[in-house]
Amino acid sequence: MQKVLYQEVAERIEKLIQKGSLKLGDKLLSVRALSQEQGVSLSTAYQTYYYLESKGLIEAKPQSGYYVKFSTQHFPAMPSMAKETQVARPVSTSEMIEDVYQRLFQPGMINLAVGSPGIPFLPVAKLSKAAHYVIRKQPDKILQYEEVKGNANLRLQIARLSFNWGGAVGKDDVVITAGCVEALSLAIKAVTQPGDAVAIESPTYHAIFQIMESQGLKVVEIPCDPQHGIDLQFLENAITRFAIKACLFVPNFNNPIGSCMPDANKKKLVELLASKEIPLIEDDIYGELYFGTNRPRTCKSFDKKGMVIYCSSFSKSLAPGYRLGYTIAGKFTEKIIALKRMHVVSTNTLAQAVIAHFLEHGRYELHLRNLRKNLHSNWLKYMQVILASFPESAKISRPSGGFVIWIELNKQTDVWKIFNKALKQKIGFVPGEIFSASGKFSNCLRLSFGEPLTKAREDAIKQVGRMFHHP
Amino acid sequence: MQKVLYQEVAERIEKLIQKGSLKLGDKLLSVRALSQEQGVSLSTAYQTYYYLESKGLIEAKPQSGYYVKFSTQHFPAMPSMAKETQVARPVSTSEMIEDVYQRLFQPGMINLAVGSPGIPFLPVAKLSKAAHYVIRKQPDKILQYEEVKGNANLRLQIARLSFNWGGAVGKDDVVITAGCVEALSLAIKAVTQPGDAVAIESPTYHAIFQIMESQGLKVVEIPCDPQHGIDLQFLENAITRFAIKACLFVPNFNNPIGSCMPDANKKKLVELLASKEIPLIEDDIYGELYFGTNRPRTCKSFDKKGMVIYCSSFSKSLAPGYRLGYTIAGKFTEKIIALKRMHVVSTNTLAQAVIAHFLEHGRYELHLRNLRKNLHSNWLKYMQVILASFPESAKISRPSGGFVIWIELNKQTDVWKIFNKALKQKIGFVPGEIFSASGKFSNCLRLSFGEPLTKAREDAIKQVGRMFHHP
Repeated sequence: MQKVLYQEVAERIEKLIQKGSLKLGDKLLSVRALSQEQGVSLSTAYQTYYYLESKGLIEAKPQSGYYVKFSTQHFPAMPSMAKETQVARPVSTSEMIEDVYQRLFQPGMINLAVGSPGIPFLPVAKLSKAAHYVIRKQPDKILQYEEVKGNANLRLQIARLSFNWGGAVGKDDVVITAGCVEALSLAIKAVTQPGDAVAIESPTYHAIFQIMESQGLKVVEIPCDPQHGIDLQFLENAITRFAIKACLFVPNFNNPIGSCMPDANKKKLVELLASKEIPLIEDDIYGELYFGTNRPRTCKSFDKKGMVIYCSSFSKSLAPGYRLGYTIAGKFTEKIIALKRMHVVSTNTLAQAVIAHFLEHGRYELHLRNLRKNLHSNWLKYMQVILASFPESAKISRPSGGFVIWIELNKQTDVWKIFNKALKQKIGFVPGEIFSASGKFSNCLRLSFGEPLTKAREDAIKQVGRMFHHP
Repeated sequence: MQKVLYQEVAERIEKLIQKGSLKLGDKLLSVRALSQEQGVSLSTAYQTYYYLESKGLIEAKPQSGYYVKFSTQHFPAMPSMAKETQVARPVSTSEMIEDVYQRLFQPGMINLAVGSPGIPFLPVAKLSKAAHYVIRKQPDKILQYEEVKGNANLRLQIARLSFNWGGAVGKDDVVITAGCVEALSLAIKAVTQPGDAVAIESPTYHAIFQIMESQGLKVVEIPCDPQHGIDLQFLENAITRFAIKACLFVPNFNNPIGSCMPDANKKKLVELLASKEIPLIEDDIYGELYFGTNRPRTCKSFDKKGMVIYCSSFSKSLAPGYRLGYTIAGKFTEKIIALKRMHVVSTNTLAQAVIAHFLEHGRYELHLRNLRKNLHSNWLKYMQVILASFPESAKISRPSGGFVIWIELNKQTDVWKIFNKALKQKIGFVPGEIFSASGKFSNCLRLSFGEPLTKAREDAIKQVGRMFHHP
């Protein structure tokens, strides 16, 4: 009887969700209130929620209660995978990208294009405290050049962090860089020659193929499934067909599509590339921003031959303005240090000392727990507004981490036109076209949920959504 | 009679200098003491010193008195110009350079290879104060990405500084970079394609031709006179012969040879290159560190067509560890901003705000005056030790700014051998070979006088000097 009772309660809640009476992100009654209001035992109330949770309809948030979570009923279809790549092509979309950014970052914009978590989600006071401390303690040291590979304590702290993603590295395996982009740029230089072909995901963060362009490289865009990332069979064929010399992938919550490659695929990918002696540059800049219970592993954690160049940074998780990243480059470490010496010399000394101090005192883990919780509930809030305002035919990504949403409109939708229209209303988002070197994704856009959802942002999303109803 | 008297006193002092009784850097009697000891009027004493000063034998230091200055009698010959370049060659000396630096920067070294002024010459307390202030005032802002071209106030301050070197630029002409090397790297990318030939000085700072190497460029080394810099006629011939696509020169106190191109040559150089539509990348990182009464002008100040890409930084003059540089790139400004967006994204926000604050409050000019004075007298002190300990046959540069000395030994001297020998004694200097892409300068070395001359440093120079007596 007991069993029937909790199922009955659960089914009613499920119907409320299906009918839209309970919406994505809505908070459910507390277990105690459910028990009282429905006249059931506490145990039954708990079972009700466990059951709904196991069906993926609701979720518990620590110290907060139960919330309506996405379900297939709620969600539109996922965006489609890009069409197959026909050629290894030279890249040239820089002018369009420059144009987009120059227009996006004007004063007075409501920007849905931001590339980092907002200030309210960052530990401002604690970082200031760490900075004051470091300046007081080492006023001399912070004025001097730091060693080329970076602050020894910071490298140690990063080595310790690697435990979370399945790594076990030492401080001398780590090289500090000015953000993840510098790490990627050095990694690409370390493993390619002008004219080489490099495999990347499609869609992908534009700086990745712009760096390729400026190095005289060709890119081969590997279509990326919005949930599971790149298709390994496809990659294997491409390797032969295009004589690929290196791969650069973002296995965890890539930008803009938000897919997370299953750990089994990561292992297979690393083995496939190792067997062909192709280096893998792994960009894990979003890896810490997971919504689930565990941090997804990294390709680097499956790397037995030192062929994976792991790159990450603190720009998306702690202090964007500090411009601090790092690489763990396996057998390419010495080469990357030499490249850094010539192209960069060294990285800002003060910033390294501050972040090292912050990490050493255990403040990063604590902050990350808050940040993940905030971004996750932020995502639910943004999704509610997007679902309510965008056309029903829109296909929308379901990232399980990070802070960007990828939206695909009908094939004929001209997102560039809406981009211009929105700019006139002082609203910014990123048009999909700049995430490919080959003019794909002209019916797509990227929205960021890195900033808290203010009324102004909510209205901006609604306005953009409406524009797509009559594009 | 009066006239004869001061000349007579002056001649005797001159003889003391010629015979080595008064040595380079020695302090002379005060004007009052000279008057008393020689039984001449104060006016005669003053005239004596003015006369010697006008002959370039002594010099006045503000609030300090008169000192023996270099004269042709004191000084050994200048190092010779490099041999003519025979080919435009691909570059490949990176391994040697990496080896040198890895061995130089070991703990416990007495380093005569340092690449920046020492801490005692930097305004540590005032920069700390500025940093605390900025963190307190803008705790949020310093965590956010700065705009790609850099902090607007810092760009304004740099634009104002340009007045000193003959410029008149606006803040939107300035792009902030992570040190001068990043500025040079972006500039090279902006004006060349892989395979192009670029003219550089010889000898030159190794990172310059390493960057060329990694960009797949060829370098044409233009021999550089230790006093007047490159030979323009030679350059003009090389432009035709090697189809040079860009030039990268350090007209003011270049590293390592310390030459300063006369302003008339700078003007001719700019006109020559403009007439052939060849961009000039001007590295002016040492320009503020002059020992004379006026700041040398820059090529940029003669640039009418926007073809000069001026690059500099605060690394050699204020805060090495801050890694802040900038470029004023004329018609290439937009291209450099686009390249910076893709390769770098943005520069450390906090460092920019601190330096902007420091400059805005007029602290930079004051600091520079002290720094110049300190480096100048440091140079005289170092020279005294070098002259007393190196073989007489050594040819030694006479920089009129900066903080490096270039020493050329007999042709057959194997500086690399002595480099290794010195390292065993925990003494570091930079062997000349790494300042050319073509294996020249194996009988040369660079010593830095950026650090105050402690007893340990003095002994180290003496020890190195002795090693060259019996190499």
